[in-house]
Amino acid sequence: MERKEQTERFKKGSANLAKIDGVGGQAVIDSLAGVGEDVGKYIIEFAFGDIYGRDALNFQQREMITITSLLSQGDTEPQLEVHINAALNVGLTQSEIVEIFIQCIPYVGFPKVLNALFVAQKVFDKQDN
Amino acid sequence: MERKEQTERFKKGSANLAKIDGVGGQAVIDSLAGVGEDVGKYIIEFAFGDIYGRDALNFQQREMITITSLLSQGDTEPQLEVHINAALNVGLTQSEIVEIFIQCIPYVGFPKVLNALFVAQKVFDKQDN
Amino acid sequence: MERKEQTERFKKGSANLAKIDGVGGQAVIDSLAGVGEDVGKYIIEFAFGDIYGRDALNFQQREMITITSLLSQGDTEPQLEVHINAALNVGLTQSEIVEIFIQCIPYVGFPKVLNALFVAQKVFDKQDN
Amino acid sequence: MERKEQTERFKKGSANLAKIDGVGGQAVIDSLAGVGEDVGKYIIEFAFGDIYGRDALNFQQREMITITSLLSQGDTEPQLEVHINAALNVGLTQSEIVEIFIQCIPYVGFPKVLNALFVAQKVFDKQDN
Amino acid sequence: MERKEQTERFKKGSANLAKIDGVGGQAVIDSLAGVGEDVGKYIIEFAFGDIYGRDALNFQQREMITITSLLSQGDTEPQLEVHINAALNVGLTQSEIVEIFIQCIPYVGFPKVLNALFVAQKVFDKQDN
Amino acid sequence: MERKEQTERFKKGSANLAKIDGVGGQAVIDSLAGVGEDVGKYIIEFAFGDIYGRDALNFQQREMITITSLLSQGDTEPQLEVHINAALNVGLTQSEIVEIFIQCIPYVGFPKVLNALFVAQKVFDKQDN
Repeated sequence: MERKEQTERFKKGSANLAKIDGVGGQAVIDSLAGVGEDVGKYIIEFAFGDIYGRDALNFQQREMITITSLLSQGDTEPQLEVHINAALNVGLTQSEIVEIFIQCIPYVGFPKVLNALFVAQKVFDKQDN
Repeated sequence: MERKEQTERFKKGSANLAKIDGVGGQAVIDSLAGVGEDVGKYIIEFAFGDIYGRDALNFQQREMITITSLLSQGDTEPQLEVHINAALNVGLTQSEIVEIFIQCIPYVGFPKVLNALFVAQKVFDKQDN
Repeated sequence: MERKEQTERFKKGSANLAKIDGVGGQAVIDSLAGVGEDVGKYIIEFAFGDIYGRDALNFQQREMITITSLLSQGDTEPQLEVHINAALNVGLTQSEIVEIFIQCIPYVGFPKVLNALFVAQKVFDKQDN
Repeated sequence: MERKEQTERFKKGSANLAKIDGVGGQAVIDSLAGVGEDVGKYIIEFAFGDIYGRDALNFQQREMITITSLLSQGDTEPQLEVHINAALNVGLTQSEIVEIFIQCIPYVGFPKVLNALFVAQKVFDKQDN
Repeated sequence: MERKEQTERFKKGSANLAKIDGVGGQAVIDSLAGVGEDVGKYIIEFAFGDIYGRDALNFQQREMITITSLLSQGDTEPQLEVHINAALNVGLTQSEIVEIFIQCIPYVGFPKVLNALFVAQKVFDKQDN
Repeated sequence: MERKEQTERFKKGSANLAKIDGVGGQAVIDSLAGVGEDVGKYIIEFAFGDIYGRDALNFQQREMITITSLLSQGDTEPQLEVHINAALNVGLTQSEIVEIFIQCIPYVGFPKVLNALFVAQKVFDKQDN
């Protein structure tokens, strides 16, 4: 994996991934070791290196945007689970996460919001126990 | 229009709509006077009365979520225009709005982000001139 | 839960929910007791109180529209299950429900229609046994 | 265009298209004469021949489903215009069409419903004048 | 099933289905025997008879397009599984399939690509063992 | 713009962009000069540098995948226009592009395919005249 270590973007992305997603993010990268190793690299370099590391918005705001985007496009349950955990990691509260989903009701309707709430419930239950 | 005036939810929603969307929001409601008068009422009562008026998130955060949701589902150009204006009204800066869209790139890809940026450019140009 | 009891909209919505969705609808509301209690309230007040209770279309037509909307946007399997049951409750037949899905083929393609048909098969099997 | 005339499905589809969409449907087929002639043939044979001609639902119900499906998936403004006209042709009223869109609010949110209402307004204005 | 046998389109579609999807495709058709028998017929006649049998693109190119379309619209996991198998059947390699998904990253973002990669991993694992 | 020149990824991406999209691609980048300059940089570095430059698929296959992905997600008319031009640039024929869209009918339905065909018609008309 020498190639990965050599870029600044990969180092910066790995650090951001660890700070934001904790173990959940690294688990996604590890799960890509088979078919999608390069995709794992792009997630680290581009998503967490180039994008998350930008100024103008902090990690809490970025996770607020990320879970909203995942909810609104649908069919992203595994990603929502990772990023609800990430949202908690960077300091958003359970109430704020639920409130983010409630704010989406007028714009996407109830079904996608219910789907996201049930993922949140699952994440919160694990955290609380 | 007597019926409308009588509910607390409608009053609260109208006040929130004025604070958040300014003239753009009222223009949407007015444009519904023909076929969709009741839809205008629901937008005021439910979206702006019930949802925007809740605690836990402020108007800036709610607009951050709203423009993310609109961008992520696509086919919402007129609504994006209204809510980019609303985002500016409640104090988000042009740079923050662009940054919200940039944060969506890893989650929805470039096309939807480009569409949103071109709407933002149009709104910013009007505001700056 | 005093607050809930007090609105006319909540009473009307609860009555509609019971008539339309039967036990399945109440189960969704109950499942929201943890993280999404307010969302359950909005579903009852807004969806079932304000919208389902309107004139111009009857409950059969409203469920025809609802299952079409759920199929067409995708990622709504749990909601489709509830509303296929609701469609049967308000008097649509199994053949009509299948036919609604078939009418969608030219507009959304086969994959979303297949997904909906497999949910319908599951609901019909439970009902027939 | 001899090949087209020869199938029963094409004849049946053409008859259904004329009954349902009137001039608007034929205009779509004609507009495909250049790049998408075969697509026009499939619309007639498959959509209007195979599907619209089935029993179990009448044309009013089929157009109710079609405009719901178009609204719910988004990015279908030209098709919505054709099928709002078709819905009127087969006997749905302006009020019923608006009510179909209102029933979708809890399931897709306000933006897609607003988009459909503005298309309806345009179609109704042409019809009324 | 006499009616089915009688059309040329059904025969041609069945032959194409067998060549492309192998056992997986027939399993989908068989699973529709209950509620969606006619849908199975349309898949064979229209999708595999009319469309897959056209000139201008070969089966490899058609499966490249199909799995891209399924990935890009989302909520199509069972269909992706069938068509990743089909893609392998008609001669696309595992590396090419992964590369097709990677090409989609800039256009749909990482979540939908990850979903497709995990389906591919599952299909490849079965094939390799 | 010194920063841009300095990366290998940017150089490689710019070369690929020129080869693939011709003037249309550069026009998109230029149009981002105001609000979305960094987005233009990411399109060049990530989309055209990292992704288009990979082995395993050639530019013709990559454009086949790209226009399929754009059609299938919807609300991408300006991007479709750029990439239909790009598809022609890298050697796909008008017939092949139309055939790619036809292959999508069973998977996304007619409306999104019609939208793409009308964009193609516009691009082909410009090219032919």
